[in-house]
Amino acid sequence: MTSLLADLERRLTGHVSVQPGDLDDHARDLNWPDRGTPAAVVYAASVADVQAAVEWADATGTPLVAWGAGSSAEGQVIADYGQVILDLSGLNGPVDVRPGDFEAACPAGVRRSEVDRAARRHGLMFTVDPGADATIGGMAATNASGTTTVRYGDMRSNVVCLRYVDAHGRVHRAGRPVAKTSSGYSLKDLLVGAAGTLGVIVEVTVRLHPVPAAIHAQRTSFPDITHAVRAAADTMEHALAVARLELADAASVRALNTVRGRDWPVAPALLVELHGSDPESLRLEVAALDSIMRRHGGNSTEGAATPSTQRALWDDRHGMFLAAMNQHPAHTYVITDTVVPMSSLPAAVEHASARAAALRLDVVVGGHIGDGNVHTLVCVAPGQDDAAATYSDELVRWALAHDGSATGEHGIGLAKKKYLALEHGDAVDQMRAVKRALDPNGIFNPGKIFDR
Amino acid sequence: MTSLLADLERRLTGHVSVQPGDLDDHARDLNWPDRGTPAAVVYAASVADVQAAVEWADATGTPLVAWGAGSSAEGQVIADYGQVILDLSGLNGPVDVRPGDFEAACPAGVRRSEVDRAARRHGLMFTVDPGADATIGGMAATNASGTTTVRYGDMRSNVVCLRYVDAHGRVHRAGRPVAKTSSGYSLKDLLVGAAGTLGVIVEVTVRLHPVPAAIHAQRTSFPDITHAVRAAADTMEHALAVARLELADAASVRALNTVRGRDWPVAPALLVELHGSDPESLRLEVAALDSIMRRHGGNSTEGAATPSTQRALWDDRHGMFLAAMNQHPAHTYVITDTVVPMSSLPAAVEHASARAAALRLDVVVGGHIGDGNVHTLVCVAPGQDDAAATYSDELVRWALAHDGSATGEHGIGLAKKKYLALEHGDAVDQMRAVKRALDPNGIFNPGKIFDR
Repeated sequence: MTSLLADLERRLTGHVSVQPGDLDDHARDLNWPDRGTPAAVVYAASVADVQAAVEWADATGTPLVAWGAGSSAEGQVIADYGQVILDLSGLNGPVDVRPGDFEAACPAGVRRSEVDRAARRHGLMFTVDPGADATIGGMAATNASGTTTVRYGDMRSNVVCLRYVDAHGRVHRAGRPVAKTSSGYSLKDLLVGAAGTLGVIVEVTVRLHPVPAAIHAQRTSFPDITHAVRAAADTMEHALAVARLELADAASVRALNTVRGRDWPVAPALLVELHGSDPESLRLEVAALDSIMRRHGGNSTEGAATPSTQRALWDDRHGMFLAAMNQHPAHTYVITDTVVPMSSLPAAVEHASARAAALRLDVVVGGHIGDGNVHTLVCVAPGQDDAAATYSDELVRWALAHDGSATGEHGIGLAKKKYLALEHGDAVDQMRAVKRALDPNGIFNPGKIFDR
Repeated sequence: MTSLLADLERRLTGHVSVQPGDLDDHARDLNWPDRGTPAAVVYAASVADVQAAVEWADATGTPLVAWGAGSSAEGQVIADYGQVILDLSGLNGPVDVRPGDFEAACPAGVRRSEVDRAARRHGLMFTVDPGADATIGGMAATNASGTTTVRYGDMRSNVVCLRYVDAHGRVHRAGRPVAKTSSGYSLKDLLVGAAGTLGVIVEVTVRLHPVPAAIHAQRTSFPDITHAVRAAADTMEHALAVARLELADAASVRALNTVRGRDWPVAPALLVELHGSDPESLRLEVAALDSIMRRHGGNSTEGAATPSTQRALWDDRHGMFLAAMNQHPAHTYVITDTVVPMSSLPAAVEHASARAAALRLDVVVGGHIGDGNVHTLVCVAPGQDDAAATYSDELVRWALAHDGSATGEHGIGLAKKKYLALEHGDAVDQMRAVKRALDPNGIFNPGKIFDR
């Protein structure tokens, strides 16, 4: 490896590090349980640097793992057998907001918070919010989504077009910054969600949305989780202007109350946000929402009418799993990410709760319920590893048996590879054929999504 | 070919025709100027029939062209060198509407009007409307869109998942019927828009939308086309609940008045539809729209408040190009389909009008202006073929030079192949690599999108 790295250093002088601190900074993601120490880290500061790194990888057959903020949840950026990390956070030039087109061209290393800040200077917003302040390139690579996806869509539907470096170091545009096109194959949609296995995304043009003129948020408690989920499904059927629709179970609320000093009723809750184009029409939507909530046993609704109370509500929502972790300090944690059709959602949540009880696991149930995306956090006590693995496995298999998917937003990465064939059958061969076609030497993030 | 066809007939007894009438029925699409008589037509009545035809094609290296309703606009279904047509209109079993999931699973041969009718029995609607009553499979294959795309999206964003037969005759699911997923490569998005060059789509699960509680439509006339287009761009920037936003130039209006007996002011017009969740909020949107229209010189607005007047308005819109054709009986016709970013739209329409005048061509300008998608209809008098070709070429090159695309919704097909590399550069090599990977024997619609 040493002469290979010397060659890399020659091509990218001053951009390559093998310092233990740098390697260690790139050895973990947010959720994958194991470390993976890379052989080296390349800090790209330009698209030309990315091309040089890829040309080296192509010439030497050395695998590269593209890295944004390291906030992936399923091991997508882990150098699990000593690959070279290609750190793209230096691709962080200015965000080019085009307000008349509702678009912004973003270098891949820019954080989503920066994109949103730039958009808001024009009365627009960038809506994809996975919680972590991820880079735009990483979010495109994992097809990230989050609380606002129920209204504004996932990354795939918010990436208008992109630029990427292919396996031979050439830069391509995938798509054009237009509202629609039918020109050739949608390489853009192939790169989005490919976790850096087909090319290195270096620029992403995202869709922006107008900041709504009127926003209402609220939290409503329910007698049990089934009532809460049925209220959520009914809300979706009524096609209200729902911008967020999140579930928190009683355990999440208990953790929040304890760790963050809240005084929410200890009961399952729906957290809802509505966006309207004017206060009057929003008032009508809120009334409709209230009647749905009441019909399903919703009680003790707490509204959030001001920007600061709304921010606090969503900050609490994003802090929920962390609060539960804080309550279980000597534990490890397993997060699930299944998604099912809305009609199967009440049964999915009941199954998740019932199996947690049967396996005597400490489980927090929540998620982006308006999308049918259920997250559970298993707080695994010593000796419970097998039970936690069984639980996670059961939830995925239940989702797949009910026309769902193993992952709503976290991606396959390293963690879900064993379910790929179960979900897609022989279509995995078609995916592998595409992989071989676009990455013939296997230099892009090998071992992710598929086995090496 | 005879022994090959005998083999095909053995595999699909009773489903293969070489009758001149059948061949002639499959020799043209809606717009491609030339005939292409197929060697035979296979009438598939089941997915197994499709598999049998593909297995034959794979074994014998014989090319197949999938056929839905024959309503493609760029020659996508033309057997231009005597290929075999695979007619999928017999895949027309019941539409499976799942109202709680806002989805319907549709056999590929079902017409869009049937899907919409089935949806409306549940208070839902299927929104993609390219004008022609195309099949769902064909619409997916060309990534069709139309008047309502400005609000409800193109086929790509309305296809949740699909089933297709690959080049070896195997049936695959591409995606799952869920709101979002990050599991593996999005084969669904690869098949959508591939014009049958990567696989044969046999079932499509589409997204349905609730029928809006309140609908308002109107037509507003403007002093000139630039004012009309600027009003359209401004309307989009205000993020109103625009469900359709269409442009008709003075020539279109003149043709409508003459051929269909209307009395619209002979001036450029915007045709707009707004969808609201209740009459009161819609009233506010209409007021906001009116003030935008007036600010840009809009006058003589004619509202359409009832379902029947709204139907009449959109029927007139869809009949516009046909009316212009009726006025020019001894002509041939060239339709363009460029799309540009909204910020370039006023200049694009001005360019289209100015070049028509300079080339002394009879041109009708219209299109899905809310998406930046401009259609022109050139009525080509004898001797004007070269001028018409020049005009069409200039419009595409202008769009590409302004970050636009050669085709907003019609697709590349046979007609736009020469612009593929101009639009995508070397990325065409990546598309070709995908084509070779998924269709190694080149049996699926060869010569479309790319040269053979």
